[in-house]
Amino acid sequence: MKKLEIKTPTPTDIEISQSSELLTIEELSKEIGLLSNEYEIHGKYRGKITLEVLERLKNQENGNYVLVTGINPTSFGEGKTTTSLGLSQSLGAHLNKKVFTCLRCPSRGPTFGIKGGASGGGYSLVVPMDEFNLFLPDIDAVSIANNLCAAAIDTRMFHESYQKDIDLFNRLCPKDKNGNRLFTKSMLIRLKKLGIEKQKPEDLTDLEINQFCRLNIDPQTITWKRVVDVSDRYLRKITVGQSQTEKGRIRETGFDIAVASEVMAILALANSLQDLRERIGRIVVARDKDSRPVTTEDLGVAGAMTVLLKDVIKPNLMQTIEKTPVLVHSGPFANIAHGNSSIIADKIALKLVGKDGYVVTEAGFGADCGAEKFFNIKCRSSGLTPNCCVIVCSLRALKTHGGIPLSECKKPNIEGVIKGCSNLKQHIENISKFGIPTVVCINQFINDTDEEIAAVITEAKKAGAFDAVSSTHYARGGEGAIQLATSVIEACQMKNNFKFLYELNLPIKSKIEIIAKEIYRADSVKYEGTTEEDIENFEKNGFGNLPICIAKTQYSFSHDPKLLGTPNGFVFPIREIRASIGAGFIFPISGDISTMPGLPTRPAYYDIDIDEKGNITGLF
Amino acid sequence: MKKLEIKTPTPTDIEISQSSELLTIEELSKEIGLLSNEYEIHGKYRGKITLEVLERLKNQENGNYVLVTGINPTSFGEGKTTTSLGLSQSLGAHLNKKVFTCLRCPSRGPTFGIKGGASGGGYSLVVPMDEFNLFLPDIDAVSIANNLCAAAIDTRMFHESYQKDIDLFNRLCPKDKNGNRLFTKSMLIRLKKLGIEKQKPEDLTDLEINQFCRLNIDPQTITWKRVVDVSDRYLRKITVGQSQTEKGRIRETGFDIAVASEVMAILALANSLQDLRERIGRIVVARDKDSRPVTTEDLGVAGAMTVLLKDVIKPNLMQTIEKTPVLVHSGPFANIAHGNSSIIADKIALKLVGKDGYVVTEAGFGADCGAEKFFNIKCRSSGLTPNCCVIVCSLRALKTHGGIPLSECKKPNIEGVIKGCSNLKQHIENISKFGIPTVVCINQFINDTDEEIAAVITEAKKAGAFDAVSSTHYARGGEGAIQLATSVIEACQMKNNFKFLYELNLPIKSKIEIIAKEIYRADSVKYEGTTEEDIENFEKNGFGNLPICIAKTQYSFSHDPKLLGTPNGFVFPIREIRASIGAGFIFPISGDISTMPGLPTRPAYYDIDIDEKGNITGLF
Repeated sequence: MKKLEIKTPTPTDIEISQSSELLTIEELSKEIGLLSNEYEIHGKYRGKITLEVLERLKNQENGNYVLVTGINPTSFGEGKTTTSLGLSQSLGAHLNKKVFTCLRCPSRGPTFGIKGGASGGGYSLVVPMDEFNLFLPDIDAVSIANNLCAAAIDTRMFHESYQKDIDLFNRLCPKDKNGNRLFTKSMLIRLKKLGIEKQKPEDLTDLEINQFCRLNIDPQTITWKRVVDVSDRYLRKITVGQSQTEKGRIRETGFDIAVASEVMAILALANSLQDLRERIGRIVVARDKDSRPVTTEDLGVAGAMTVLLKDVIKPNLMQTIEKTPVLVHSGPFANIAHGNSSIIADKIALKLVGKDGYVVTEAGFGADCGAEKFFNIKCRSSGLTPNCCVIVCSLRALKTHGGIPLSECKKPNIEGVIKGCSNLKQHIENISKFGIPTVVCINQFINDTDEEIAAVITEAKKAGAFDAVSSTHYARGGEGAIQLATSVIEACQMKNNFKFLYELNLPIKSKIEIIAKEIYRADSVKYEGTTEEDIENFEKNGFGNLPICIAKTQYSFSHDPKLLGTPNGFVFPIREIRASIGAGFIFPISGDISTMPGLPTRPAYYDIDIDEKGNITGLF
Repeated sequence: MKKLEIKTPTPTDIEISQSSELLTIEELSKEIGLLSNEYEIHGKYRGKITLEVLERLKNQENGNYVLVTGINPTSFGEGKTTTSLGLSQSLGAHLNKKVFTCLRCPSRGPTFGIKGGASGGGYSLVVPMDEFNLFLPDIDAVSIANNLCAAAIDTRMFHESYQKDIDLFNRLCPKDKNGNRLFTKSMLIRLKKLGIEKQKPEDLTDLEINQFCRLNIDPQTITWKRVVDVSDRYLRKITVGQSQTEKGRIRETGFDIAVASEVMAILALANSLQDLRERIGRIVVARDKDSRPVTTEDLGVAGAMTVLLKDVIKPNLMQTIEKTPVLVHSGPFANIAHGNSSIIADKIALKLVGKDGYVVTEAGFGADCGAEKFFNIKCRSSGLTPNCCVIVCSLRALKTHGGIPLSECKKPNIEGVIKGCSNLKQHIENISKFGIPTVVCINQFINDTDEEIAAVITEAKKAGAFDAVSSTHYARGGEGAIQLATSVIEACQMKNNFKFLYELNLPIKSKIEIIAKEIYRADSVKYEGTTEEDIENFEKNGFGNLPICIAKTQYSFSHDPKLLGTPNGFVFPIREIRASIGAGFIFPISGDISTMPGLPTRPAYYDIDIDEKGNITGLF
């Protein structure tokens, strides 16, 4: 394999991406051991792996499962994706291990907004970077499935509002061309839910027709919003139905950014196509006027929604600039969802690398959110056990947690670094509660001093890290991460005592309190507004056994983004509590969580253009 | 080649699709003469043709260019797509001609709503039909480009509303890490438009800063709407900006179905990537407070919008069940846009089939809309000359135009058919005004009588058709369309006198009147509301030289969907007049035109589902 040609100073990401030499998808697929029916080619450098491979390799032992997470993010970014890629490049291209990196599909909201793309950086990069940031199909398919459901909700309310039971029934169950009336699959599921065991429309009584036809959605309880993969702040709160054709049936609602859709969380948590179909059918979109949950199955739209996801259930196959394989799949938000790449991608990767291989998977936000949800939600759904956790930090980010002003963070400041290590250390302690070893990775920048790095290593080990190393994969690719990779290999050889933080059969409030106290270090939890009632209602409806997915700021262990370092002695407030029954979690919301970003005065799109040959400029 | 195995009665389309034997994209690409760098594989049965092929074949003579259009549609459907495919299958698989069919991407609105898919029917089918109806990327890319622009408009108004000129300027032209300030490409275009020749931000005077930074969009004049590829009636009219974060800056707007986006029309009318970029930059989204047009270039978003279309500019390559190639590309609405498949697809196909080959391309709605716009808008933009026009009709649709009630239309009724032929005959006369021969195709159904068919043939020839034939391609595939194909071949050998209906340098009102009188047969045109002022304004802004794209009902020659047959003596009203400057046409709107369909009580999605193996059911 041709060695990576490293330039100094590091060129821009798009320059590195456009000058990199890639394997074709056929070559890559062959190299990772796929049979010809187990992958699809989608353009020159993107493939899809079909789920058949899981069947063929079902008796294969899984590889080592490595989670990459971070300290609480700061405005500098710590480089979780860059580190995931650098670690993989090192394992695969330098240490001769079989390896996969599993990443989420990036939203185009940040790509065109403030943050830029999410393809790693420098010489730790997934390529082609424009393909990764802009042209993966997952988010579009999720958006359309989500929005079809939204249209189904409003349309159904509209049609129920002016029709008599019998007219509604005749329209829902019309005669086919042979004069027969049939229930669809979703109608039979609804009938079963209503306790009506009949199979033929003709046999329903008037009362049963009423029960069957009337979803009686209470508009005040609709939690389903429309989505778009654009940062469009004006859609946060809107009124719909103002055309005369809707006859005054207006309603206040809003749009979320597409990655916040429950459909995206479901795609990430499903274990198979059948599991996906069932989860989609369990989605609760609202309650009826008797407070009973109304599902997508009741709306008759769950099958069509799943059909729209038929292709995107297959993970996208791409590669790093050192030609190691990357699976990019799904992209759930890390607050109101669990913020991890997909179970299906991880499972395929674990089988393909086999016993001696490595799968590096990334979790969003800091370890208090991303890793906690990885363990308690994702691993619970997949049945997989992680072997090692990498916590990424940077000196400048640690200094921010140590109270140093942003403008000073790029200068050496040993006291600031040590003070900021409190944040890192608490994450290390937290991970140890799940029973797996932690390797700390200091993502090294050009002005970092040896003294500062040594201090972080000492602090990390004091807190119980298996190892702590600095790493120069940004500037040097996999070669710069050899020490990190070596530590990860050693950590994976440790005996594993993986355990969940809480049992599912505890009351919802207990589960929330365990996370708030054990992970966030709150003194207590405060339930605001109607949250306690809502919890009771969830438990009454049989949703009490689900895991918890707390939506809070990523910038702090607490609910307050300004409390850096290790806040303690705080009361953790639950402002609102909602449920994603299809995805399979309850999500309490603490503090202000925006599910629709805005655009600044000068969004990133100002710099993005394309020349007549199709070369893209300005992407970062 | 293996002969098509025909079953009677004709199975459902999805059954035919799922049981058909297909070429791989590699085999298909080889067969149509593509070099390996001229196509991309996207999944097993979908490819993309790259624009390089146009460069290689630029000296190749074009093939014969056949437009398929129809009489005014009725609720029965006439089968334009089915006929396009059947004709191609006959030319390619039975008469040994090189052939391509060019179709539009179908919207998922109708697929999940009332109408069903658009992949043809019976044994004249593009396959795999689920891939065609649900999984092509064009509409998603168009949607996101459209919606990015919408967010850019509202965001810009928001940020202009609270910032001083200098703050706005400093944010729009910030210092980079080397301390330099630079204008982006779009900023330089805006400066040029303002008559400011300076290249450096530092050189601008206060007045120039003000002119540069303030787009001063008049919210009342915004014509740009958001889009979604779902029939979602509740989004027809909405109020946005109701979240507290938008500080009371609410605005009434709406969503269109995605295929109604100007971006879609642009994709269909562009001749190259550079042409696409320029057209996107010319889009007028609103006027400023001095009534001057505000463009996407002014918003700095035109480059990013084009980047999003980088892949979808390449036409999708698929095939018929008889393995002839199909290009599916773009999908503009047929009322507020021109309703034809893309110029790029047609051009590639014409080069690939070469001098003795045939390209069958379809236009939406009846010939009064789709064909008129094909000639006057699409051919004007492409410079291509059609050789022959096929007008599709069915006996049941003719009977509807002849005043026979729907319930009676499937029964023989010779008088009804002859009376309904008036509609067909007027379309034949209209096409002759463009100087090309017409072949009438009677799309035959099982109960059609020989006597009725003979009557239509006589009437069509009386009206000047080159030929008129009945065709059984639905039930028999290409074999059933051999007579049609033979007539088309003969028609294409005729001397061609193609001409446009109007010259571009005529006043806008004259161009509208020529279409209304010559094609629709109106007595006169009535300009309602502010339409005459708006026309003056367009002409003042330099848009007077564009062709006209009239938005009216497809069901009638007139503006009134109830006036079947050949209405005359009517006044054609222009209710509103708008412009798609990027696409390059003025569109007067007559009557009620919905740009967002609704869903019925029982939408098609009720029947659509997927099994655990990924087989889709219920699609039609």
